[in-house]
Amino acid sequence: MEDKYTIGLDYGTLSGRGVLVRCRDGQVLASGVKEYSHGVMDRFLPDGITALPDAWCLEYPGDYLEVLDEVVPALLRESGVDKKSIIGIGIDFTSCTMLPVDKNGVPLCEKEEFAHRRNAYAKLWKHHGAQKQADKVNELIESLGLEDSPRFGGKISPELLIPKVMEILEEDPEIYHCADEILEAGDWVTRVLTGSHKRSCSMAGYKAWWNSREGYVDREFLKQLHPELEDFAAEKMPGEICGIGESIGRLSEEWADRLGLTAGIEVAPAIIDSHAGVPGSCLSDVKQMMMVLGTSSVMVALSEKPYSEKGVCGGVKDAIVPGYYALESGLASVGDLFGWFTDRMVPEDYRKEAEKEGINIHTLLSRKAEKLEPGESGVLALDWWNGNKTPFVDGSLTGILFGLTLSTKPEEIYRALIEATAFGTKRIVDLYEQSGLDIEEVIASGGISMKNEMLMQIYADVLGKKIKIAASDQAAALGSAVYAALAAGETAGGYDSYWTAVRSMSSVKEQVYLPDKKRMEKYTKLYDIYCALSDIMGADSRDLLKELRDMKQEQ
Amino acid sequence: MEDKYTIGLDYGTLSGRGVLVRCRDGQVLASGVKEYSHGVMDRFLPDGITALPDAWCLEYPGDYLEVLDEVVPALLRESGVDKKSIIGIGIDFTSCTMLPVDKNGVPLCEKEEFAHRRNAYAKLWKHHGAQKQADKVNELIESLGLEDSPRFGGKISPELLIPKVMEILEEDPEIYHCADEILEAGDWVTRVLTGSHKRSCSMAGYKAWWNSREGYVDREFLKQLHPELEDFAAEKMPGEICGIGESIGRLSEEWADRLGLTAGIEVAPAIIDSHAGVPGSCLSDVKQMMMVLGTSSVMVALSEKPYSEKGVCGGVKDAIVPGYYALESGLASVGDLFGWFTDRMVPEDYRKEAEKEGINIHTLLSRKAEKLEPGESGVLALDWWNGNKTPFVDGSLTGILFGLTLSTKPEEIYRALIEATAFGTKRIVDLYEQSGLDIEEVIASGGISMKNEMLMQIYADVLGKKIKIAASDQAAALGSAVYAALAAGETAGGYDSYWTAVRSMSSVKEQVYLPDKKRMEKYTKLYDIYCALSDIMGADSRDLLKELRDMKQEQ
Repeated sequence: MEDKYTIGLDYGTLSGRGVLVRCRDGQVLASGVKEYSHGVMDRFLPDGITALPDAWCLEYPGDYLEVLDEVVPALLRESGVDKKSIIGIGIDFTSCTMLPVDKNGVPLCEKEEFAHRRNAYAKLWKHHGAQKQADKVNELIESLGLEDSPRFGGKISPELLIPKVMEILEEDPEIYHCADEILEAGDWVTRVLTGSHKRSCSMAGYKAWWNSREGYVDREFLKQLHPELEDFAAEKMPGEICGIGESIGRLSEEWADRLGLTAGIEVAPAIIDSHAGVPGSCLSDVKQMMMVLGTSSVMVALSEKPYSEKGVCGGVKDAIVPGYYALESGLASVGDLFGWFTDRMVPEDYRKEAEKEGINIHTLLSRKAEKLEPGESGVLALDWWNGNKTPFVDGSLTGILFGLTLSTKPEEIYRALIEATAFGTKRIVDLYEQSGLDIEEVIASGGISMKNEMLMQIYADVLGKKIKIAASDQAAALGSAVYAALAAGETAGGYDSYWTAVRSMSSVKEQVYLPDKKRMEKYTKLYDIYCALSDIMGADSRDLLKELRDMKQEQ
Repeated sequence: MEDKYTIGLDYGTLSGRGVLVRCRDGQVLASGVKEYSHGVMDRFLPDGITALPDAWCLEYPGDYLEVLDEVVPALLRESGVDKKSIIGIGIDFTSCTMLPVDKNGVPLCEKEEFAHRRNAYAKLWKHHGAQKQADKVNELIESLGLEDSPRFGGKISPELLIPKVMEILEEDPEIYHCADEILEAGDWVTRVLTGSHKRSCSMAGYKAWWNSREGYVDREFLKQLHPELEDFAAEKMPGEICGIGESIGRLSEEWADRLGLTAGIEVAPAIIDSHAGVPGSCLSDVKQMMMVLGTSSVMVALSEKPYSEKGVCGGVKDAIVPGYYALESGLASVGDLFGWFTDRMVPEDYRKEAEKEGINIHTLLSRKAEKLEPGESGVLALDWWNGNKTPFVDGSLTGILFGLTLSTKPEEIYRALIEATAFGTKRIVDLYEQSGLDIEEVIASGGISMKNEMLMQIYADVLGKKIKIAASDQAAALGSAVYAALAAGETAGGYDSYWTAVRSMSSVKEQVYLPDKKRMEKYTKLYDIYCALSDIMGADSRDLLKELRDMKQEQ
């Protein structure tokens, strides 16, 4: 049979990436990237004069379509593949990145009358403007005694959909009322391509408290958040929920022409970007955990039963692998944290040394830090530079450095930061295992997993588990191509089974990180101190870190 | 009457400084500095091959005499003052800086047979080799239930005399037994100059657990520390204790000739260097507190009764101002902490900005940091980079930085470090006031007090007290000259009263830092958080910081 191909599109924070992949063996025949023309807007709207408050992060939805227009035709050109052999498109997207649109699906920010209104734009996943609204939701959850409800999984984050919607309604009710729909950017892109109003169960489940048994939260709950929110789910989020592995609709004639593809090919429902890494990094056994190490990190493991607690989301079936629940949590800063350190804290002589040796600053710091034994520096960090998701579900928690002395060196802090993220990861893995999972090995993906061997070894030693590295350096995009093959199905030249698709299209590298017994023992002691300090600082009744944060916000 | 003059000598960590001062008005007619030829030896003995363990800090006593030989004649030359008008010499010295000598006062390290033996050298005040011995002393203090004894003032530090002596005895018994005396370097210099075996009550009281009511610790206590230590006080520390404000002896003919002075002039007992700042910075009222801000800091306030607790030493009468007890404590790192930060943590672009503007890095950071309101950064530090003296008396405590986020800037940490030292100072002042003192204003001295206005204002706001600045930039040396005038006495052209001497010879600048009410209020809240975090981290039963430190030392 003639080879068939799918296109995987991976919409990240700063750019959209595409790959064209052969279904038979996952071979990537072409790939391309397009940076968003407007980037992340955190200071001004595109008019250049409307200033944004702190904690705001917006995007311009037109940028997402530019990615389609530039990348897809380029993939065809570069690969030379006949468009008739392309059987499907899969999309992953940052989430919850959401926007209000009119009845034709036109983003409100593209209308002249709303161009200067910040709530009309796409709010990026890491937009933190809705903390007040999240607090209100948490108060309601607490007053209703729903803290243990798996729907919410403990305290909720301002990054979720409802707080962001409440923010629109409270700050700029006209925008809210003019919006015919409010939807995830990923759902918006599949809607543009197919005209389908269906929404992905991925974002609905993880970001909008939907589940297959009960649907969205009830009207009464929404009403208590805001009287005008009562009918939000019914009015502004119409459309059937579509499971992952299915097709959300078929490519329209208009977009087929525009992109140079065949009309009617299947489009997979959008999936949360990091989750697309599950097939993309070859998670092909239920005893494996996927770990994406990027600016932040995500850990996903499969489960036969739901589990949502302490910041772990795992209440949605079929959201990543058909037939399974998937537990998800992660650290709110990983690469970002190391970047903060190298940008803000590394002295001039280290820069010069790196320059002289022709290596980057991370390589220099890693070389120096890898000579240290666990615990040798006496420095230990709590990795909360961007808050803590698990177990405290508290975005207002802040980072701490313990054990500093007059002889503390930059590489000692650098290593402590890496170790802290490994400890934070272990806390999540511990929780997964307490919920009944049996995790035998970890498959890592994301830039850091390929670039920093010292870090990977530390993770192996701290977790006490074998770590493999995904072969693809574009695991999310590849994963989207896998979902496209599933949406197309076997008869079209794709696949009907997730497991067959993954084992055919995805792989891991030969290199494996094995935990070292001696270092594991030392890390067990250090992890014990990390947990004790975390519990004091994260759960202490007096909540001193929050008091500090409050003082900061009072200014 | 013809003008009379005294010479004040200030022996610091790296150099000895001298001033020639007019008794009538404190006018400094000449000053000079001599760096110690051997500097601080923390890696090798002078032979260049005998390596020193970590935490060792030695000096070469011959360097102290070089200071006399170079500086004193230079003072005479520079001032043109007739030697007959010079009526006394006063000396201050770092302490406990101690050394073993033979019966003629020759340091053992100057003997060929001991030149390669590290315990034969002068151990500098900040020599931390005797931690194990200090631990042993603390165990004994605890087992005897003497934790609250004012003699020890809680836990004792490895910087004191007895741990350093025990280290000699345990590491190199031959040195201990060959030493006819073990004495403070300050006492050694006055002994060299005068032949007098008297010792100053300053060092004896603050560093060797002597007090006027009971003398040194008893033989039984010493025996329990080490069987061969039983007779230490009687055998190795002979010599009467001399109060401050008196004369310890008269300048010998030999040294008068050698230095170009008149034989028989009075020499004041050596005083701890920072304490000499009390008269030198014009502490002329019992409601004033002296604060020396250097690499570390010292706070001294006068009291009518003894108080020794929680790292505050105040059990010795007449040790600084005749007739009074003087409470002393301080922070183990201040300038050192800021220096650590600028050396190790300030990024290249800040260096370049400072260079471009032609200012030093502290000035740049201060300019940026002074725009912040108290609490605005959300960053708070515990200032324990070199341990904590008060209230936890624990040199193994380490520094902590709380409240770090991805947007934390270097100047925010810099300000937090400054604030932390101010909070640490306030904890000491609070304790002084709880002991019954009424401190109305602070007189600051030391390099930082002259150089960093932002820091001084933060101290005023945190302490909620008026701060004046000592006029002299060599307050300790000037103070030593004041003590020399007291040793000489009024009939010789000096003074009989401390208060008259200080008011005549010393002064403060016109500039005054007044606390700002609004910032004081904010700092009250921040200080409350600082204290709560300190208590958790410094006194928590689990002692997590110590566990970290222990892991570090196990490597």
